[in-house]
Amino acid sequence: MKTITTISGVYAGSVAAGIKPGRDDLAYIYVPNAVASAGVFTTNKFKAACVTYTQKLMKRHTVKAVIINAGNANAATGDVGIRNAKRTGSRAAKRLNIPATEVAVSSTGIIGVQLPIDKIEAGLDTLLANPYQVDGMAAANAIMTTDLVPKHAYAEAIIGNKRIQVAGIAKGSGMIEPNMATMLGFVVTNARLDRAQLATHLKAAVDDSFNQISVDSDTSTNDMVLAFATGDHDVSPHDPEAVAAFRRLLTTVCQDLAKAIARDGEGATKLIELNVAGAASRSDARKIGKSVINSPLVKTAIHGADPNWGRVAAAIGKTPDVKINPDKVTIRFASTTVFEAGAPIDFDRELVSDALRRSTVVIDITLGLGSGRAQLWGCDLTKGYIDINTDYS
Amino acid sequence: MKTITTISGVYAGSVAAGIKPGRDDLAYIYVPNAVASAGVFTTNKFKAACVTYTQKLMKRHTVKAVIINAGNANAATGDVGIRNAKRTGSRAAKRLNIPATEVAVSSTGIIGVQLPIDKIEAGLDTLLANPYQVDGMAAANAIMTTDLVPKHAYAEAIIGNKRIQVAGIAKGSGMIEPNMATMLGFVVTNARLDRAQLATHLKAAVDDSFNQISVDSDTSTNDMVLAFATGDHDVSPHDPEAVAAFRRLLTTVCQDLAKAIARDGEGATKLIELNVAGAASRSDARKIGKSVINSPLVKTAIHGADPNWGRVAAAIGKTPDVKINPDKVTIRFASTTVFEAGAPIDFDRELVSDALRRSTVVIDITLGLGSGRAQLWGCDLTKGYIDINTDYS
Repeated sequence: MKTITTISGVYAGSVAAGIKPGRDDLAYIYVPNAVASAGVFTTNKFKAACVTYTQKLMKRHTVKAVIINAGNANAATGDVGIRNAKRTGSRAAKRLNIPATEVAVSSTGIIGVQLPIDKIEAGLDTLLANPYQVDGMAAANAIMTTDLVPKHAYAEAIIGNKRIQVAGIAKGSGMIEPNMATMLGFVVTNARLDRAQLATHLKAAVDDSFNQISVDSDTSTNDMVLAFATGDHDVSPHDPEAVAAFRRLLTTVCQDLAKAIARDGEGATKLIELNVAGAASRSDARKIGKSVINSPLVKTAIHGADPNWGRVAAAIGKTPDVKINPDKVTIRFASTTVFEAGAPIDFDRELVSDALRRSTVVIDITLGLGSGRAQLWGCDLTKGYIDINTDYS
Repeated sequence: MKTITTISGVYAGSVAAGIKPGRDDLAYIYVPNAVASAGVFTTNKFKAACVTYTQKLMKRHTVKAVIINAGNANAATGDVGIRNAKRTGSRAAKRLNIPATEVAVSSTGIIGVQLPIDKIEAGLDTLLANPYQVDGMAAANAIMTTDLVPKHAYAEAIIGNKRIQVAGIAKGSGMIEPNMATMLGFVVTNARLDRAQLATHLKAAVDDSFNQISVDSDTSTNDMVLAFATGDHDVSPHDPEAVAAFRRLLTTVCQDLAKAIARDGEGATKLIELNVAGAASRSDARKIGKSVINSPLVKTAIHGADPNWGRVAAAIGKTPDVKINPDKVTIRFASTTVFEAGAPIDFDRELVSDALRRSTVVIDITLGLGSGRAQLWGCDLTKGYIDINTDYS
């Protein structure tokens, strides 16, 4: 399987630092020749210390490594939390023999409890004794929380005669005992771009991927996506085709990771892919899509394999501040039109219901107003979700 | 038990019209001497025919009666649906011997299927053979869908030496086979107000009651709250104290009905009361409150009797477009402070957890920014919700 360490010049590995019992819980990614780095961070106003620390760092520096721990979010931990984030970065920098300003930190796990910083420092000494490990698999495993599967994505394309690669790992919205869901993503490429270019591409790719998934509408204090470029091959900023091709490649990898997260949502049994078209604007398409993909009634109907256009119509209609003309709305489940021009139409309910029993369910909504589009991913809502989030302690 | 027909000059009753098998499913409320009527309607852009019809009617006329059916929402039914709404109103008007413009209609149930209008017309002939029934209890029962209990509220106060009464019935967000949740409320008073005054009071009361509850964040095509005034006693519009007292009375009744709806939410085992204070504005307080009361993570934590301040903090922090200073936020569960000035504090977890096992759970949030307040009601999220909404067909 291809992962981040498939790309030459990208190193990663993990160790059991003792934060979580009986498994690896501390990972690193190291790109010694990184020419650019970029980050996208949670919009939650309660930001974890690692977010505050890393966000500040990345504004000014090209970061070459990130240390990620599971088991403790370092959130709601005050000044001590910030000091611990800094100590984590500094210790890793010392072991990697690079400036502390080149090491980001990322955490996921329990909130309101201080990091076991002694364990982390000791773990880093072991982990980074050899900083040139090529074990992206181990890193993807170590950052998991209630994720059932590790998440990898890889894509490549020939851009300007060069084989440009993009790869990533992620962890999903697993509930972290005892507090909240967090999404982390780490993406690497062998392309050469500057910091501003990478930041622009990452922002756009995240907007069309991680920002378009929803497991339960909750946003964490710790969400973070970081990108690193090794700089092996130029992607000319003056060639619009090359720039667009790179954007597509990065977006593909981010979407694959995002879909893997949605499919592995807590208690989920299937991935829902939602396509909204014909909205008055792109922003309207996104708002309507979020309203539908987050609707508990839609999510439970899909769980029950019920082509319930009524719930989809109601979720479209309840979206505030968007243009909707009910008489122009069309809804399709698994490519079968069930509601057209504002009215239900006859369809083979058994056939569509069978299609909704598959592991991926596609819903298409056409609004008939303009050219605004959005694609979103979510999952069904099941008793498994209730179990995980009620009985976690 | 006191209900709408406790108020002199208010008549109500029900009949089994055969829309739903084996129970009463058609009800009426009739206020022959009504001096004012007012309505608040769903903001969903997919409006049921009964909403379109009644909303239009109430803009121009003082309505004296409403016909309510369960079992069919008359939504997504096109022109035929509008004609059937009109036929329902006309038939009732004929039996009551009043103009058709004085009869509102209200429906709840399956969507996308035409009303069984013949059954409804025949049912109305039976139901209104005696239009002077005083059986508000029967009406509250007949409008239930998956509600487990009928919902009544009554309050009175001496205003300007007169005993002013307000009473109401409601049905809650029960899932209606096979489509969506609908909330209906009907309120009567013996006060004398004009249409504009009643409309203003009703809008304000609904804003502080029905609009502040949430079972699953879904808004129906059929939601409707109507109010009628018999006009027995003046409430002087020139006496600000009297006006305020009436507003409080009406709000109390609407809040009691709203709380009954939240407590009886699908699968719910407890009522959550959320108080937000110290927000920069009233609007901010409401937005933050909605974010918390709708959070699946908060709802499942409360179901598990877990004083999980982390999930509440995250739900506060994710609210878009509001002012929040994390360092000033305080969170209390069942009157015990668990998070203060942006940081967790020690508390007796067992004691608080015990309090969260009661049938009503109070959460207080203080933001420390201004004087904006809001009170909201919701319920926990359980496997019962998944059962009702997955296996309903």
